[in-house]
Amino acid sequence: MTARRVVAFGGGHGLSASLRALRHCAPELDVEITAVVTVGDDGGSSGRLRAERGGLPPGDLRQALVALAGDHPATRRSAGLFQHRFAAVPVGVPGSGTTDPDPAVGDDPDRHGAARRGTDGASAGTDGLAGHAVGNLVLCGLMELLGDPVAALEHAGAMLGTVGRVLPMSRQPVGIEARVRGADPAAGDEVHTVRGQHQVAVTTGRVESLRLTPAAPAACAEAIEAIMAADWLIFGPGSWYTSVLPHLLVPQLADAIVSTSARRLVTLNLAAEKETLGLSVADHLAALRQYLPELKVDLVLADAKAVGDPEPVERAAESLGARLVLAPVAVSDGTPRHDPAALGAALVPVLRADR
Amino acid sequence: MTARRVVAFGGGHGLSASLRALRHCAPELDVEITAVVTVGDDGGSSGRLRAERGGLPPGDLRQALVALAGDHPATRRSAGLFQHRFAAVPVGVPGSGTTDPDPAVGDDPDRHGAARRGTDGASAGTDGLAGHAVGNLVLCGLMELLGDPVAALEHAGAMLGTVGRVLPMSRQPVGIEARVRGADPAAGDEVHTVRGQHQVAVTTGRVESLRLTPAAPAACAEAIEAIMAADWLIFGPGSWYTSVLPHLLVPQLADAIVSTSARRLVTLNLAAEKETLGLSVADHLAALRQYLPELKVDLVLADAKAVGDPEPVERAAESLGARLVLAPVAVSDGTPRHDPAALGAALVPVLRADR
Repeated sequence: MTARRVVAFGGGHGLSASLRALRHCAPELDVEITAVVTVGDDGGSSGRLRAERGGLPPGDLRQALVALAGDHPATRRSAGLFQHRFAAVPVGVPGSGTTDPDPAVGDDPDRHGAARRGTDGASAGTDGLAGHAVGNLVLCGLMELLGDPVAALEHAGAMLGTVGRVLPMSRQPVGIEARVRGADPAAGDEVHTVRGQHQVAVTTGRVESLRLTPAAPAACAEAIEAIMAADWLIFGPGSWYTSVLPHLLVPQLADAIVSTSARRLVTLNLAAEKETLGLSVADHLAALRQYLPELKVDLVLADAKAVGDPEPVERAAESLGARLVLAPVAVSDGTPRHDPAALGAALVPVLRADR
Repeated sequence: MTARRVVAFGGGHGLSASLRALRHCAPELDVEITAVVTVGDDGGSSGRLRAERGGLPPGDLRQALVALAGDHPATRRSAGLFQHRFAAVPVGVPGSGTTDPDPAVGDDPDRHGAARRGTDGASAGTDGLAGHAVGNLVLCGLMELLGDPVAALEHAGAMLGTVGRVLPMSRQPVGIEARVRGADPAAGDEVHTVRGQHQVAVTTGRVESLRLTPAAPAACAEAIEAIMAADWLIFGPGSWYTSVLPHLLVPQLADAIVSTSARRLVTLNLAAEKETLGLSVADHLAALRQYLPELKVDLVLADAKAVGDPEPVERAAESLGARLVLAPVAVSDGTPRHDPAALGAALVPVLRADR
């Protein structure tokens, strides 16, 4: 059985779901996983580290590493350590802190979640550790020590016994900006510039355009290599504007995505998020084309319940050159989360098929 | 060849030197190493973490783990990560930080060194990470996550592939207090109470008595087991009042040290430190008896150059029941540091000898 080389793009919970699903393809299919991760986060623990220390925001990278952590009890414990988040404790109270839930579930305090919890930004709790996940500090330290984020991620991967590789989309952190209509309810339907991934993620206006700052960051060379050598590229699920589309805005990455001989799969979300309120399922596909018009897609994978009437989605898929595949990939409790086993089961026949 | 079970007591650089020397006994001698580490630190990174988070001060534990870290390139890199200390950086300057030198060498910023560097205490640098070693944060996170310092140290040991075990002398942090004559030069020869390991370590007065707070902390049960099962106990080198003597002040530890069938070795320092200015080499041995009158010692190991006239040292050793062994154990550059290979070479015939 030849290994299928798969590159999964994203950030945060969506990418974690994708990576966990790919792990579930084994033992039916031998998959060599590479995660390519956004580096635009400026909220929560990651945003503080980025602002204060200047390296890549580590949270999305950490989530991807943890999703790929080995099954040995020791590596699972190290993954738990990476997810452990220092609480804001009153002085002298030992044994506090929380462990992030399965990254496939719930809030992401590295990003907007931390702001909601009140442990965000400069006004952190009782000491400078409050709100930081240990893994973010380990990644930050490794990047300083080794002087290169790719080397740092390789070592962190070894610490966690990961079953794949995690790469940043760029070695430089990027900013995300959006032109948003109706971002300020008091200003009616006006278009404003919303700056920063965190602000874009929580805007309730309609995003009209998205850009990176700098506009053309250098892509991570190892990510380009992985894309060119891949059998499959997988985009989504995830926060569309802040986790999925940013990859298409890195020119060298976009070139590789368009020119590789790899096939391309888009996994659609199960529900709209704040940043994509008002965007239909078909609109999500249209957005891919808006930002990378040359993009051709082979397959769009979605859950029938999230799609509703399949017809407009089928048409949107066709305009990308893709076939729509419907499969039950949500968890059974009704919440809009992908079930890694179900998503993995849906991926096996897709990834296995020869051209 | 039967393994020699050796328990080394101490903290900071002195314990590191002892542990590195024990590693140098291989392959001539199979040594099972257990380090029992002081938990009284209240200065530097460790002191901040202890004050803010309430667990054991991690710095001395980290130094012992790093001294025992495996030789594989990956575990050596993880040891480098544990030693990496976040610098006080201006906002937005990436790639900063320092890596602690070999713990056998130079300052210990976990303790008094940090104060000298100005990254100590609440007035830490630009953010809450400045001055913290990554390994201190990892240990702090593991203690919170696993709820037990011994389990945390076991996992950290696995992360570093340590060739021995590191235990705290107690699961509870302790305070160190000393009655010091002439601590305040303005007050002449008066006796004052100096509180806290950091203050005791830097006092230039003469320590008349030492005590722990609480006075009778519970000993780590695993440390007691290791002492009772040991072939040899090794005390020193190290800061006498703040790293070596505290173990003798933990009643359950003192009972085990006195009642075990293990033989006992004292390795003397190569030079006086601030806290022991005015204390002769023989006085160091007398201090052991002052705090644990029942203590019997088999061997005292010292460097002839540090001892000078051996006669008073021989008499002090005899009063503990010990024989004085002189060996060249200092580094060759003239600085008062133990050379791990030389100290190891001196230990081999000692540890190998049958009763």
